[in-house]
Amino acid sequence: MVEGNRLVETFKQTVYRLGGHGPRDLHTLKISLMELDDELESDLYGKGKVIEDFEEKMAHYLGKESAVFFPSGTMAQQIALRIWCDQKGIKKVAYHPLSHLEIHEEDGLKELHQIEPILLGNKDRIIQLEDVLGLEEDIACLLLELPQREIGGQLPEYETLEAISAYCREKGIKLHLDGARLFEIMPFYQKSAAEICELFDSVYVSFYKGLGGIAGAILAGDTDFTETSKVWKRRHGGDLISLYPYILSADYYFNLRVGKMEKYFEEAKELAFLFNQCHAVSTLPIEPVSNMFHVHFAVQKETLEPILIDLHLETGIGFSSYLKEVNSGASYFELGIGDMYEQIPNDKINAAFASLSKKLEQNNTNNNVE
Amino acid sequence: MVEGNRLVETFKQTVYRLGGHGPRDLHTLKISLMELDDELESDLYGKGKVIEDFEEKMAHYLGKESAVFFPSGTMAQQIALRIWCDQKGIKKVAYHPLSHLEIHEEDGLKELHQIEPILLGNKDRIIQLEDVLGLEEDIACLLLELPQREIGGQLPEYETLEAISAYCREKGIKLHLDGARLFEIMPFYQKSAAEICELFDSVYVSFYKGLGGIAGAILAGDTDFTETSKVWKRRHGGDLISLYPYILSADYYFNLRVGKMEKYFEEAKELAFLFNQCHAVSTLPIEPVSNMFHVHFAVQKETLEPILIDLHLETGIGFSSYLKEVNSGASYFELGIGDMYEQIPNDKINAAFASLSKKLEQNNTNNNVE
Repeated sequence: MVEGNRLVETFKQTVYRLGGHGPRDLHTLKISLMELDDELESDLYGKGKVIEDFEEKMAHYLGKESAVFFPSGTMAQQIALRIWCDQKGIKKVAYHPLSHLEIHEEDGLKELHQIEPILLGNKDRIIQLEDVLGLEEDIACLLLELPQREIGGQLPEYETLEAISAYCREKGIKLHLDGARLFEIMPFYQKSAAEICELFDSVYVSFYKGLGGIAGAILAGDTDFTETSKVWKRRHGGDLISLYPYILSADYYFNLRVGKMEKYFEEAKELAFLFNQCHAVSTLPIEPVSNMFHVHFAVQKETLEPILIDLHLETGIGFSSYLKEVNSGASYFELGIGDMYEQIPNDKINAAFASLSKKLEQNNTNNNVE
Repeated sequence: MVEGNRLVETFKQTVYRLGGHGPRDLHTLKISLMELDDELESDLYGKGKVIEDFEEKMAHYLGKESAVFFPSGTMAQQIALRIWCDQKGIKKVAYHPLSHLEIHEEDGLKELHQIEPILLGNKDRIIQLEDVLGLEEDIACLLLELPQREIGGQLPEYETLEAISAYCREKGIKLHLDGARLFEIMPFYQKSAAEICELFDSVYVSFYKGLGGIAGAILAGDTDFTETSKVWKRRHGGDLISLYPYILSADYYFNLRVGKMEKYFEEAKELAFLFNQCHAVSTLPIEPVSNMFHVHFAVQKETLEPILIDLHLETGIGFSSYLKEVNSGASYFELGIGDMYEQIPNDKINAAFASLSKKLEQNNTNNNVE
């Protein structure tokens, strides 16, 4: 068995986990439906109580006039950008070079909507006001992802957001929020979802990141915008006869976990601190601003893999099921804190981190000797 | 309350139903998951045992090299046509004027893929070999919907299908099957799914029509085709992190009902016969060729609605929850036979049809007297 598979296997066998809410299995769905009445009627192509009630609830929570449930954020966000482009008659938008639309969607925005993205700022940092000030009226929409996931979940200052929002309004540029992890950033900003969303013309939120639902997304904005988004949802093939398996579970996990984001945030800071104490390890950001961060090792993937495998077997704590190479001498993985972290006894955590640091130091010594 | 709402309400209160499998409610999902292991792992963006096993099962059943699970047929079919257009470098396809793509998808094919459809034949009848013989190499794909739903679920002779298939192969035109109701036509043709699909280059099947699942579709063809369809599935926003709620229920209802299509077909013929005995009623087609048909009344919608409402209240048998106007003097509804039909006692059926016919005759007499 190759090391990568061993890493997955040993991770799966651990009792404890640093990140997440536990396995994504059928239990996750079943428990969310258990208490609900069997006679609860399905939605029907976007209509019916089950979908309309949830859309209304989320519109209210996000402080927007109206909201539409989508099977995926990929679909919702392409559609949001398309609507703003059509409204302005300009097929150009701006977003971060590591935006989900740029690196995870097989160029759907370009291939399906012929929209040209301007990549704003730099891969290694978040978009700042200075980047935005360069934008003129010739783009329809600026998309901001909060937090910027691919660089460890970093966030701008709230004042920066306010300034970007004011600038965009002045210039007639629509501002769209990729809020896949919106719930997760409320504790850092100490703002409500509605307060943050007020800065944006349209907002997408996800139900399977920090909330741990099955799948699904909400797109919110004014009613003209959301009504148009329903037409595009049908065109994309997202206006399913029944979306209720996603809606009901989204509602369940929203209710269960939206109030826990402060706790996950505090735990993320605690855990990042432990990593930063270890030899050859640093987190990005050093102090997390949400429930997520990246753990960077000044050690190559091939060297780190057996160390993590040993750690899994020895401590019963799952650190990560994968490793990504940054360059030939460094590697990292992502952590998002959820319900699993609190289940690990303190002494086991401390022992595990002592062991990790020791293994990394030993590796360093061996390398120097060689 | 307007009559249309009364029709829905009285329909919902009936104990028996002529068509369908019963209400689309949460029970439909729960029962399909009940026996499955809680630890069953989710699919993950199109990968994993739960999705791959089902795709393989359906590929085998349809006699194709490979199959991909999609959240919807709207998505699957646009993508199929796009792939064939790209392969040939011609953005033109042909289908029936009442194809799902033409009338139910908000022009997704045109708006997202810039594909121009040629509407083949005539609204009131199915596509015949003569219509196809006019096609030349300048189209990429011909889509056939079997049965043609919007005209009561009509079918061409099997020999016609074979001749169309042979012609398309000769001319280098890809042939795609809109098999939303493929399982339902096997008894009429007395052919297996694989035998029918052999005539086509690509095939879509649905899991919530005759099978009565929650939602979801399969697109099948050769492996080059299906692998490309996965890229487009991601672009459309259909490559969800978890599709298992649809996959598991699709598998459950496929296993439960695919073997009952012969029975539904026989019952549809029996029921259509009863309708055709009634005054001012005829079914389309007169003798069904699948589990479905349309019931046409030589009576306007406003007149028929109170008659059906009375019938619901009087007999406890749900005829239809809606009526569509054909023109000012005629109306119709659609029936698809499922598990509900067999539950109605024979004497109740006969009494209900006697009553329907009497009410329609009475209405006729009243009109003549006025």
